[in-house]
Amino acid sequence: MNKHTPQSEFQTPTVTTGPLPASRKVYVASELYPDVAAPVRYISVHPTANEPDLPVYDPSGPYTEEGFEPDVEKGLERKRTAWVTERGGVEDYEGRDIKPEDNGNATGKYLARQFPTHHRPLRGTGDAPITQLEFARAGIVTKEMEYVAIRENMGRKAALDSARATIDDGESFGAELPEFVTGEFVRDEIARGRAVIPVNINHPEAEPMIIGRNFLVKINANIGNSAVTSSVEEEVDKMVWSTRWGADTVMDLSTGRNIHNTREWIIRNSPVPIGTVPIYQALEKVNGVAEDLTWEVYRDTLIEQCEQGVDYFTVHAGVRLPFIHLTASRVTGIVSRGGSIMAKWCLAHHKESFLYTNFEEICEIMRRYDVTFSLGDGLRPGSTADANDRAQFAELETLGELTKIAWKHGVQVMIEGPGHVAMHKIKANMDKQLKVCGEAPFYTLGPLTTDIAPGYDHITSGIGAAMIGWFGTAMLCYVTPKEHLGLPNRDDVKVGVITYKLAAHAADLAKGHPAARMRDDALSRARFEFRWEDQFNLGLDPETARDFHDETLPKEAHKTAHFCSMCGPKFCSMKITQDVRDYADGLSDNEKADLEAATQEVALANMPDGPDVAEEGMKDMSKLYKKMGSKLYLDQE
Amino acid sequence: MNKHTPQSEFQTPTVTTGPLPASRKVYVASELYPDVAAPVRYISVHPTANEPDLPVYDPSGPYTEEGFEPDVEKGLERKRTAWVTERGGVEDYEGRDIKPEDNGNATGKYLARQFPTHHRPLRGTGDAPITQLEFARAGIVTKEMEYVAIRENMGRKAALDSARATIDDGESFGAELPEFVTGEFVRDEIARGRAVIPVNINHPEAEPMIIGRNFLVKINANIGNSAVTSSVEEEVDKMVWSTRWGADTVMDLSTGRNIHNTREWIIRNSPVPIGTVPIYQALEKVNGVAEDLTWEVYRDTLIEQCEQGVDYFTVHAGVRLPFIHLTASRVTGIVSRGGSIMAKWCLAHHKESFLYTNFEEICEIMRRYDVTFSLGDGLRPGSTADANDRAQFAELETLGELTKIAWKHGVQVMIEGPGHVAMHKIKANMDKQLKVCGEAPFYTLGPLTTDIAPGYDHITSGIGAAMIGWFGTAMLCYVTPKEHLGLPNRDDVKVGVITYKLAAHAADLAKGHPAARMRDDALSRARFEFRWEDQFNLGLDPETARDFHDETLPKEAHKTAHFCSMCGPKFCSMKITQDVRDYADGLSDNEKADLEAATQEVALANMPDGPDVAEEGMKDMSKLYKKMGSKLYLDQE
Repeated sequence: MNKHTPQSEFQTPTVTTGPLPASRKVYVASELYPDVAAPVRYISVHPTANEPDLPVYDPSGPYTEEGFEPDVEKGLERKRTAWVTERGGVEDYEGRDIKPEDNGNATGKYLARQFPTHHRPLRGTGDAPITQLEFARAGIVTKEMEYVAIRENMGRKAALDSARATIDDGESFGAELPEFVTGEFVRDEIARGRAVIPVNINHPEAEPMIIGRNFLVKINANIGNSAVTSSVEEEVDKMVWSTRWGADTVMDLSTGRNIHNTREWIIRNSPVPIGTVPIYQALEKVNGVAEDLTWEVYRDTLIEQCEQGVDYFTVHAGVRLPFIHLTASRVTGIVSRGGSIMAKWCLAHHKESFLYTNFEEICEIMRRYDVTFSLGDGLRPGSTADANDRAQFAELETLGELTKIAWKHGVQVMIEGPGHVAMHKIKANMDKQLKVCGEAPFYTLGPLTTDIAPGYDHITSGIGAAMIGWFGTAMLCYVTPKEHLGLPNRDDVKVGVITYKLAAHAADLAKGHPAARMRDDALSRARFEFRWEDQFNLGLDPETARDFHDETLPKEAHKTAHFCSMCGPKFCSMKITQDVRDYADGLSDNEKADLEAATQEVALANMPDGPDVAEEGMKDMSKLYKKMGSKLYLDQE
Repeated sequence: MNKHTPQSEFQTPTVTTGPLPASRKVYVASELYPDVAAPVRYISVHPTANEPDLPVYDPSGPYTEEGFEPDVEKGLERKRTAWVTERGGVEDYEGRDIKPEDNGNATGKYLARQFPTHHRPLRGTGDAPITQLEFARAGIVTKEMEYVAIRENMGRKAALDSARATIDDGESFGAELPEFVTGEFVRDEIARGRAVIPVNINHPEAEPMIIGRNFLVKINANIGNSAVTSSVEEEVDKMVWSTRWGADTVMDLSTGRNIHNTREWIIRNSPVPIGTVPIYQALEKVNGVAEDLTWEVYRDTLIEQCEQGVDYFTVHAGVRLPFIHLTASRVTGIVSRGGSIMAKWCLAHHKESFLYTNFEEICEIMRRYDVTFSLGDGLRPGSTADANDRAQFAELETLGELTKIAWKHGVQVMIEGPGHVAMHKIKANMDKQLKVCGEAPFYTLGPLTTDIAPGYDHITSGIGAAMIGWFGTAMLCYVTPKEHLGLPNRDDVKVGVITYKLAAHAADLAKGHPAARMRDDALSRARFEFRWEDQFNLGLDPETARDFHDETLPKEAHKTAHFCSMCGPKFCSMKITQDVRDYADGLSDNEKADLEAATQEVALANMPDGPDVAEEGMKDMSKLYKKMGSKLYLDQE
């Protein structure tokens, strides 16, 4: 991979580019729309495998195309503008002027450079459909819907036969995963509110993606500067870096100065949807004093970010005045930053939250740009002690109420959840969300399943994330090893993304997603056949896998050697399996029948219900056995 | 911490010593036996916390005592010899001579130095009880049982009140966790076969510990040299190192030369039970040629290891000839090393496994030393594709059959399981084990919940481990980041141990173990109150937590500062909670009632069953509310 550092008199973002190992990006064309083609990454394997290249979902944008030269000063291509304008119902306009407070009043050398081009923003003009939800309800399969349908299938049509051979049913807890995703299926899921495509009409650089429990589980990575450290350049590269490893959306949680300008660079160069928490920037505009926040400052911030192209907003409108006292007896009170800002405001004014009282107007604003709600969980538990308490659930019920209001306005909605929740309380949380929020997609932080491992909270939360993803959460917000301790660096971001990618995939597998097992099986075959390079390349992090291997067996020759460091060259357990296969192939039918009888005997002898019941079972099996012409019936279970 | 490297003309093991940060070791005395006192680690917190020191379970032995000076040439104190001999029924004898093949015929400078002292081994002499299982059945609470009872309670009697205040019920899936563990409870669990204390009478250096699903979930770390790399010194230090971070038992999986001598150093210096896979050493004795294995070589190896003091043996006696062909159609065939050795032998001779046909004699040998069975899962799945198939379950049923035979001989038993199993198949595996193996403790590798993340398999498996631990697995065998790729180094071992420690703890929490939540709550309080040092010290890995924190905020002053790097000094969400508490304290009863009414309104309005049903609920709540004298009923859920 390459680091591009343009030679310029200005400080400009550096960007990581180049394909992942053994990978090429293919844009699979729509049969419906000539200008729609969605990306799939194909991983090639060694010719001896005699297998087609493996298609995998790819959120990384053009940065991982062979030979792509990014021009961060220009931003990515604005392909989707044509899709939006050709549908009508929108106008371009001059847009709001950038104000000094948008960048925390930074001036001179402290002010981050403005993005060179001003794009006139678009906004909806009337009652004609603007949002994906409105189009879906009107029965229209938009280009965005067609795009995500192709994307979710990962070119699976071609690989259909081999993929189908290994599908498990899984346990889907009410999710209804289609064999193949069609544009019409996408439309229907969006119309029902069960899925969202978070793409602001002013973020035409983004590649549309879908979040819903009948699709692949997605992950989000957070980036952002802070009052203490970090720079614009680092933040832009973190976005590119995190999508390289699999982040499906990125949240910009910047605080302090230069929020506006930093975000502009990120959005203009981002192939994935960008989410924000607008109250963070609003707070900066009132110098960090929560009680000085006003609806007018917040409203102006929303419009500022709508025009820039933010794709989804976390809005903590469920932190209502009557719920705040419910947190008083908690071990860790209110730990959500947005939640505590609103709590502070409500207490200072002894008034209902202005987010709650102005919710309909927020909907009207967001609708005009098709910005998706991510209704924030400001009262999420910050310790396992506080999980699933009345405060958390009162807020969740309110988010259900607000979901219906947003839907009434045609605005797409997802719901934020968990935090710290021990394993036995996770499913109750998911089930309640499905029930009270009308199946709107759940988007959860972790949850962290224990509080005792600072430094390892990507793992304490990866456990909970895999589980809640299995139970029905549509997007998992990552946690890095630095959680609770400090700001993540480049390596931490990568570890967080890979951890969540594997958790999301474990969830897809357990749900029985029809495309999930292809990759496990391809990698397992590579492992079994000692195709080391293939094993690295088919994995989520080829670089780390290769580095780890080379620490023990650095020589190139060892990568094709038929042994690994666990057993050494003399004895190899995988090699023995080949002997087993040769043996099984050579068995006569009589020999097989004898072996099978012995196997059944064990099963029967060890049935805890006793020999009488076992006897019945034996008879049934015997009948089945005869019926099958005395052939073996392997793998019944 | 210190690294002890004795100055000697010989190469001797280096050992890590010294207490963990802010920790002291206390030996809690038995009220029953004057010579029994079990270790507890107490972590002290800042005086401002006004909290007692937190007791935690401690498997690390004397190495973490303040001022302990290890003498690896002498080994640890052999305290438990007196306990064994005073019970009678045992004799000491000269024992088997060390043979050249025990060390792979290594000579001269290639031969690892022998441990300086020869201890005459003990063995049982007749029908009088020898094993913990036999004593338990005879109604005798041994000193080992008393020891583990104290240990499991972690000094909780003193902290009873504060601990009790925060206990969740959890969801225990049939496990019956006692409020406090007594020696009698331990005895009963062992008598039923539901728990084991794996301590060979020839490993008197070990601190007894218990493995069973009605106790704290335990973890095992694997160490071992290999044909390719590693040395004696490294292996001994890995044992000490892994117990320092929390390994409850250690398996020595050495292959190649010097197996005997390396193991002697490890056992003599080990405070935790040591497990082995005797077929590995037996294979070395026949130069790595599986078909040359004989019952006699294996039998001799068993006695060699019984005399040395190995505490539990993995015996793959369930890999029977009739099952081998069941693996032929698998994606990854047989991946267990022991399993494939036995499969190879069975095929070469076309005979039933000598482990299976000689199982009763194996029991007789192991009984004389109280070595515990860990019945091996030689057919465990090496890929998610192969999980829960007929081969895996035929073997598991056989392990159930063998469990009953071992119990008949008075030998303690645990059962090995999983491997690669996607989340939706984990519970079925656990349930089947409980059913067919008479509730003998389950001891599982992971399971890995997806195959696609080489380099991160501590995490893919940590997910499965936490879940299966919750469902009832008694001990989790760790997986390091190097799994499938290479041999773990010191850092990998630590990461593997901490990952499994947090998975085991997450399982304890979810099961509702009465001592589990103390630590989460203590850490969460520290986090909430910005007691940074306490947060580090109460965690599983204080060093890493501190290092991560210091990367962003290195100054000492910041460790007591009332902010963290997430929000910076100006705004702090945790601080706001204090305002909330002040506010809640100041509310009048009328104000509280109004707030509560508003909360209930939200809950009712958002009940998906509709307003009619909600109306009923409202009435009930209203009654309850009046009954409580209009007081708030917080935290109902």
